[in-house]
Amino acid sequence: MVKESRVDVLIIGAGPCGLMCANALAGAGVDFRIIDNRPIGVAAGQADGIQPRTIEVLQSYGLAEPLLKDGAQMHLCAFYNPGPSGGIERTGRTADVTAPSARYPFKITIAQASIEALFIESLKSQGISVDRPIVPSSLEISEDPKELLDPSSYPVKVVLDHILPSDATPEQEIVHAKFVLGADGAHSWVRKTLGFSMDGEQSDYIWGVIDFIPDTDFPDIRNRAAIHSSNGSCMIIPREGDKVRFYLQMSDKDVMDPETGRIDKNKVTAENLINTARKTFYPYTVNEPKEVDWCSIYIIGQRVASKFSKHERVFIGGDACHTHSPKAGQGMNASMNDTHNLAWKLAQVLRGRADMSLLKTYELERQKYAQDLIDFDREFSTLFSGKPRTSENQEGVTHEQFLRAFQASGGFSSGIGVHYMPSAIVDTIHQGCAPNIIIGQRMLPQIFVRVADARPVEIQDMLPADTRFKLLLFVGLLTPEQLANVRRLAEELQLPTSFLQKYDYPAQGKVQSMFDIISITAGHKDDVNFLDLPPTFRTHWSKVLIDDTDVTGRLGGGAYPRFGIDETEITMVVVRPDGYVGMIAPSTALESMDKYFGSFLIGKTLNPVE
Amino acid sequence: MVKESRVDVLIIGAGPCGLMCANALAGAGVDFRIIDNRPIGVAAGQADGIQPRTIEVLQSYGLAEPLLKDGAQMHLCAFYNPGPSGGIERTGRTADVTAPSARYPFKITIAQASIEALFIESLKSQGISVDRPIVPSSLEISEDPKELLDPSSYPVKVVLDHILPSDATPEQEIVHAKFVLGADGAHSWVRKTLGFSMDGEQSDYIWGVIDFIPDTDFPDIRNRAAIHSSNGSCMIIPREGDKVRFYLQMSDKDVMDPETGRIDKNKVTAENLINTARKTFYPYTVNEPKEVDWCSIYIIGQRVASKFSKHERVFIGGDACHTHSPKAGQGMNASMNDTHNLAWKLAQVLRGRADMSLLKTYELERQKYAQDLIDFDREFSTLFSGKPRTSENQEGVTHEQFLRAFQASGGFSSGIGVHYMPSAIVDTIHQGCAPNIIIGQRMLPQIFVRVADARPVEIQDMLPADTRFKLLLFVGLLTPEQLANVRRLAEELQLPTSFLQKYDYPAQGKVQSMFDIISITAGHKDDVNFLDLPPTFRTHWSKVLIDDTDVTGRLGGGAYPRFGIDETEITMVVVRPDGYVGMIAPSTALESMDKYFGSFLIGKTLNPVE
Repeated sequence: MVKESRVDVLIIGAGPCGLMCANALAGAGVDFRIIDNRPIGVAAGQADGIQPRTIEVLQSYGLAEPLLKDGAQMHLCAFYNPGPSGGIERTGRTADVTAPSARYPFKITIAQASIEALFIESLKSQGISVDRPIVPSSLEISEDPKELLDPSSYPVKVVLDHILPSDATPEQEIVHAKFVLGADGAHSWVRKTLGFSMDGEQSDYIWGVIDFIPDTDFPDIRNRAAIHSSNGSCMIIPREGDKVRFYLQMSDKDVMDPETGRIDKNKVTAENLINTARKTFYPYTVNEPKEVDWCSIYIIGQRVASKFSKHERVFIGGDACHTHSPKAGQGMNASMNDTHNLAWKLAQVLRGRADMSLLKTYELERQKYAQDLIDFDREFSTLFSGKPRTSENQEGVTHEQFLRAFQASGGFSSGIGVHYMPSAIVDTIHQGCAPNIIIGQRMLPQIFVRVADARPVEIQDMLPADTRFKLLLFVGLLTPEQLANVRRLAEELQLPTSFLQKYDYPAQGKVQSMFDIISITAGHKDDVNFLDLPPTFRTHWSKVLIDDTDVTGRLGGGAYPRFGIDETEITMVVVRPDGYVGMIAPSTALESMDKYFGSFLIGKTLNPVE
Repeated sequence: MVKESRVDVLIIGAGPCGLMCANALAGAGVDFRIIDNRPIGVAAGQADGIQPRTIEVLQSYGLAEPLLKDGAQMHLCAFYNPGPSGGIERTGRTADVTAPSARYPFKITIAQASIEALFIESLKSQGISVDRPIVPSSLEISEDPKELLDPSSYPVKVVLDHILPSDATPEQEIVHAKFVLGADGAHSWVRKTLGFSMDGEQSDYIWGVIDFIPDTDFPDIRNRAAIHSSNGSCMIIPREGDKVRFYLQMSDKDVMDPETGRIDKNKVTAENLINTARKTFYPYTVNEPKEVDWCSIYIIGQRVASKFSKHERVFIGGDACHTHSPKAGQGMNASMNDTHNLAWKLAQVLRGRADMSLLKTYELERQKYAQDLIDFDREFSTLFSGKPRTSENQEGVTHEQFLRAFQASGGFSSGIGVHYMPSAIVDTIHQGCAPNIIIGQRMLPQIFVRVADARPVEIQDMLPADTRFKLLLFVGLLTPEQLANVRRLAEELQLPTSFLQKYDYPAQGKVQSMFDIISITAGHKDDVNFLDLPPTFRTHWSKVLIDDTDVTGRLGGGAYPRFGIDETEITMVVVRPDGYVGMIAPSTALESMDKYFGSFLIGKTLNPVE
């Protein structure tokens, strides 16, 4: 008797990609299971850079605080190149995060285990745990088009093997799922089973990596540092406490078996890596470390999966879809952001509030991002692995070349510049109403002041990843004339044909309503009374903000001109549940808004929810 | 057989005063017990305003975060007075916190129970809990001068009655303590047992207080608001969630029993209080509340205990030493700050590192503060309870009078202005070296940048309440000449006669070392190498700061001119374990520093610790 069960979403793999998805679905009250083939989570090593945008995303789930407290922060990047004496010398320092709108102007390093623990704790507080060790052994998708189009069907059948202690035969289980996520890493079984290829190439550069507590006179040991020396390159990544990570370029002779011509892992010892570092760091000294945490070796390869989804029923995410070098610290970020993008879409489809076609935007948005990522990584890795320019090597990479590439890629590498192209959920038709809030990019951080209690609030903190669309209503300067317009708009939005009525549903348990309205006035905080706004636009006293400074004059203000919004108009900005701007419209173009939401949401009258 | 036991410190009373003491002693590894006569802690109501300085203090114990997250914040104070029509109208708004150096420019309201829970959780994580319900029944102090002077003696004998369920006779226990703290409230049994009087007077003003969720069109319902109406005064204090507190001036006829002339508590119902509010708020409406949390009544009285300590062996703190009106939100703050002042002194004396005379500074510092507090409260209460100036009442209090008093008292009421007078631990001789860091006041908040990793840090976060003296070493601009001076100073401080050697002890478990050195350079972060400082002045890479802005240019910088410190000199600022500046000296006056510490610390050679 094989046990059979049903689940809405089956997540295969409990790394950062799978756990992000699990946590988001748990918050949305979605029925899911998460399984993993390892008996316990990761220990030392592995990906651990957290980019500024990822901090914003984790904050939208209420999970950023522990990172900010416990992680190492990288604020500066220092650059070293060969000096006239042959040893390295500092050629410059620059802000490590060059995206000016980053809410957190730094990167964080923290062990992957700590990130996973965050999610696992959050799941635990909701009574959910990872099922492990479990290995999937077969996966079949129905080919019946009717079944595939019916969001309430279970067209995916997965056989799971429960690994038992000792050598006992695994216990089998059959799971029928509405949706499956393969978050099972670079060697993804799900990807292979679906038959998706990994497109890209392997480079010849070999890198060693070592985590340890250094003893050195190198002055930038607590900054990110990019060292180009005549003896190879090194990237320093400071880590928690006194630890640092070195990425070290290795020469073939250091790591190859001369007989077979293949990498000999036995040659990669902490001692060898430290010796390589010594040559690279000269004239600075690197003494024998007291404590070595972990070391390893890798060859750079940049690849993207040919597809990210089959029939919008089985998805892959994270390392299963993209592999690249770890030095730019993107891996874990791309992985978590994949499922941050997917989870709210799954939730709305499963609730019967969004059309199945919404799920197509996952591959559309994330595959393009992955392609950009490996292009970026290839360019950056080549520059970094190349020989530096010296008097003997006039063909080498100059500091200026490297710095230019570093700064030009700042928007991308910080995650801040991620830009989703027009689609059902990204409509740029009225971009002109707020030219500096880029539709398709994440909503800009900005401090406003709450009208009712003069408390400064960061707008991003009012945009939690709670599956709701946020409607930022820039009501402008509340002159009597403008107030009349605002009231008229409220009346229009009360009509049953308006998107606000047609697509909203009352919240029920963990199933949130579809919209949250935040009103933002211009003017001075002493003159505005939040009770003047019609009740539709002040569902709670905390939801009315003003673009003014706080009582100290140090925080907030200037958003209308910064965003390019006219204070004499009413401008609506739609922020998607994942924090990306989906649509902007003037109050005179309500029909555009109705059309936008109508293209992927299911109206109450069209398809009543039982 | 009565159980007998010994303890270093016995704390009687587990309100905010006793719990603050317990938590501080636990952190210092001191042997103590805390008892309380209530079977469980407080529920609704009671003191709950947290002033800016108290937030700083809680932050120095790592306990501020939950308050900042869960508490209501008051940023503005609004003032209402009778208008020409007879009803109230707004006469102005001002920042609620007028002390410009406040790190947190707002006040917090949160239930006393939440504050107590913070401490109780922190104690629990260290394996400590409150013993309850226990009532002390006798307290005797030895009169033997030799015993009293010996810090290792147990001169206080307290009999405790353990209250048992049902009517069983309490179980008795005898405790021999080195020190006792009476934190047992306004009706303090400890104070009465010691025979200390409460000096001061009772006023005639009667006030009602009610916590509820209001339904009103009053626009400042989420701000602190001071309303003077012809029908009495009201103070609004917004609270957590949607709750608010009203303090309402009651007329005699509302609350007195006409026969006895005494307050009839039965007359104080939520309905009566809301009716009083309605008259005060006219023309604004106050509808029947959906939810009333708590209501009560009180008569203002301002009193201070004649003494705060007996033989520096039994101390009283909190409401046991000072009572005043709750409207200014000072009660819980004064109470916690009493024991914040006392705890590190007890810890150092018990470790044998400070002289018993250090304990005299508790009464010296906190009794003066308490007297200032009730003077402030009397003035403020009188102004607030007085009739407002109207055309009929030309003798009344004007808005300008009240606003002036409000703003003038901002330093005091925020706690920021607390200023301890010269004593063994406050030495103002070299105030001129840093004229704007006031000796006797708390160290000013200021953001610096860490040299090693360019991370901005708030200096207050480097001054935890860990019983250590912090030595802020302003080393100035590190020219070659200045560096030579810095190295010379390091050598002088290495001499066995220097305070840094004489009074320091290695840390052992929870027993911290005596000093922590933080070096602060001037100049630009790109030019300074933290490794240039002698090892004495960089005990860890994180302890070297620079007075410069962070990578965004938005945080930090300007401290040397702000503090009035010369960049071409070396200036030492001593911050006491409680965050107050104890001493400032130029590097050329090391003998002043030796003298300062010698006046209350016990040197290694003089009195070796076993």
